[in-house]
Amino acid sequence: MTFLGYTRLMARIAVTDGMAKDAVTLLEESGHEVVLGTIGAEDLLNGALSEFDAIIVRSATKIPAAVIEATSDRVRVIGRAGVGVDNIDIEAAAQSGVPVVNAPRASTQSVVELTIGHLLSSLRHIPRSDRGLRNGQWEKKAMKGTELSGKNLGLIGFGRIAQGVGTVAQALGMDIHTYDPYLPPKVAKAQNTILHKNVDTLFANCTHISIHCNLNDETHHLVNAKRLAMMPGRSNDGIDCGNHIVNCARGGIIDESALLEALETGVLASAALDVFEIEPVPADAPLLQHENFHGTPHIGAATMEAQARVGRDIALAVMAVLDGKKCETTVNAHLLD
Amino acid sequence: MTFLGYTRLMARIAVTDGMAKDAVTLLEESGHEVVLGTIGAEDLLNGALSEFDAIIVRSATKIPAAVIEATSDRVRVIGRAGVGVDNIDIEAAAQSGVPVVNAPRASTQSVVELTIGHLLSSLRHIPRSDRGLRNGQWEKKAMKGTELSGKNLGLIGFGRIAQGVGTVAQALGMDIHTYDPYLPPKVAKAQNTILHKNVDTLFANCTHISIHCNLNDETHHLVNAKRLAMMPGRSNDGIDCGNHIVNCARGGIIDESALLEALETGVLASAALDVFEIEPVPADAPLLQHENFHGTPHIGAATMEAQARVGRDIALAVMAVLDGKKCETTVNAHLLD
Repeated sequence: MTFLGYTRLMARIAVTDGMAKDAVTLLEESGHEVVLGTIGAEDLLNGALSEFDAIIVRSATKIPAAVIEATSDRVRVIGRAGVGVDNIDIEAAAQSGVPVVNAPRASTQSVVELTIGHLLSSLRHIPRSDRGLRNGQWEKKAMKGTELSGKNLGLIGFGRIAQGVGTVAQALGMDIHTYDPYLPPKVAKAQNTILHKNVDTLFANCTHISIHCNLNDETHHLVNAKRLAMMPGRSNDGIDCGNHIVNCARGGIIDESALLEALETGVLASAALDVFEIEPVPADAPLLQHENFHGTPHIGAATMEAQARVGRDIALAVMAVLDGKKCETTVNAHLLD
Repeated sequence: MTFLGYTRLMARIAVTDGMAKDAVTLLEESGHEVVLGTIGAEDLLNGALSEFDAIIVRSATKIPAAVIEATSDRVRVIGRAGVGVDNIDIEAAAQSGVPVVNAPRASTQSVVELTIGHLLSSLRHIPRSDRGLRNGQWEKKAMKGTELSGKNLGLIGFGRIAQGVGTVAQALGMDIHTYDPYLPPKVAKAQNTILHKNVDTLFANCTHISIHCNLNDETHHLVNAKRLAMMPGRSNDGIDCGNHIVNCARGGIIDESALLEALETGVLASAALDVFEIEPVPADAPLLQHENFHGTPHIGAATMEAQARVGRDIALAVMAVLDGKKCETTVNAHLLD
């Protein structure tokens, strides 16, 4: 068909975990066929993807090496409508010559806002206070909290999201400490943060810590009993504010049994999680019932704005590859020939 | 006794609603006698304050005209360890020549942070999500929210607290609309906000509104069914985010039955209250059980930092008056001779 003055082949694109309507329209109006609907794990292993030129997933559809090996050469690109690609074997894809593209910027602001919301909810006991009101209790004295202003916030990982969190936290009067061995030190310095070469010194200096790194062998259980015990409990401004952890990045970076123990012993004053070692988190997990814990069901990117942006971004990225163009959000570019 | 090189009389100061230890020490080390402890309403009406040179209260102790009339001339100053003086008849105090001083700056940052926490908790369903997790539910799809970024935040009243909220909300990407008939317009303009001369146009322009004014005849039920119905529901950036109200100022400014009806009909997508028309809020109030409501038990100033600052500030203000100096936080200065 003809589009924007040149001829190209229509592609057949599987969208397996849903997509914003505007993004589907964008793909279709660009001349592609969009097939919406879940594809089961067994069908994937039996080569169901072979009928498509491209596949766009979120986190629900898993694409391990076996699925890629079972797929014909027809698939030319895998799109992840979001950031994390732990559900896709990007090395196996590269070995088959398939670029994996993602949409890393779309959810940044949404995760930034959720992180700040969790921090403030912890420090001011918002979910706990609300639980009390619903149970007919007016626990004004028990709900005394502390301010974020004047405290040290440690950010583990200092990519786009952490930088956004840092900006808002600075507006709230916090001092920012950072640890990110993969980022040029000038990035941390440009935002007036204190950069740590060792994650242990970040723990030793910060009463408040938020996680913003990927999950991998290096970061698995990076937050453990030993490091939690290093946190100072008293802030630089002399307030016994206790220690506070937030994780809106990936489950598994925090050792959840160590986290629960730290809440029980008072090493931690609060913990707020959007992500868990097992998701959905088991309903009988004791952590969920601790009064100084609160959580959300992995909703960092679950906003209307992020979903609209992610759909548009991934549609454009997938179409770029189908058109034979280079896509700058190709996460396995370094593994492709 | 001698202090700082001059002679003065020791004052006897009643502190009836508690005070941070450091502030009590400050009064005592300045040579005053501090008497800590509640004084019952009946004792107050029988002139119990006559034994003191000064009294420092928070909000629990009520000082109506009858209490002031029953009190001897010995009392030279009434201190309110906090901001709002609705529990003190400041006109009656002025008629008896007694200055009423408060500590308006001490809790500013704490209320700013709670307000932002409530806004983010509403928009991302934090208390509701946590309730779900505790009940064994993983309601990822139902918890889709919206970003604050790109939305219009209307601030009713633009004093210290609202200005602080505005600064943080601007860092989050919000556009700020303000209404404050008692403030020089240059204050609103200096912070790049859109100043409204009529509160109705603020409602018509803002999907998000936060209250930061005093409670008086003019502001009683300022937020009512008619004005809630004016809110646009759709943001400037085209997102159907719904309408959201936060009140960390004073109960009674919002008509709570209109608020509940607006939640039930969907005119409001969320409401977050730290203050209520009746406090403690009645345990059977239907508002408390609405899934899009969440609340806290009047804890705006309930932080370690605010309590330390408020104690110090009110101790200094009361001692200034006792020393015959002018105190700039005298709330009935305009009524005194």
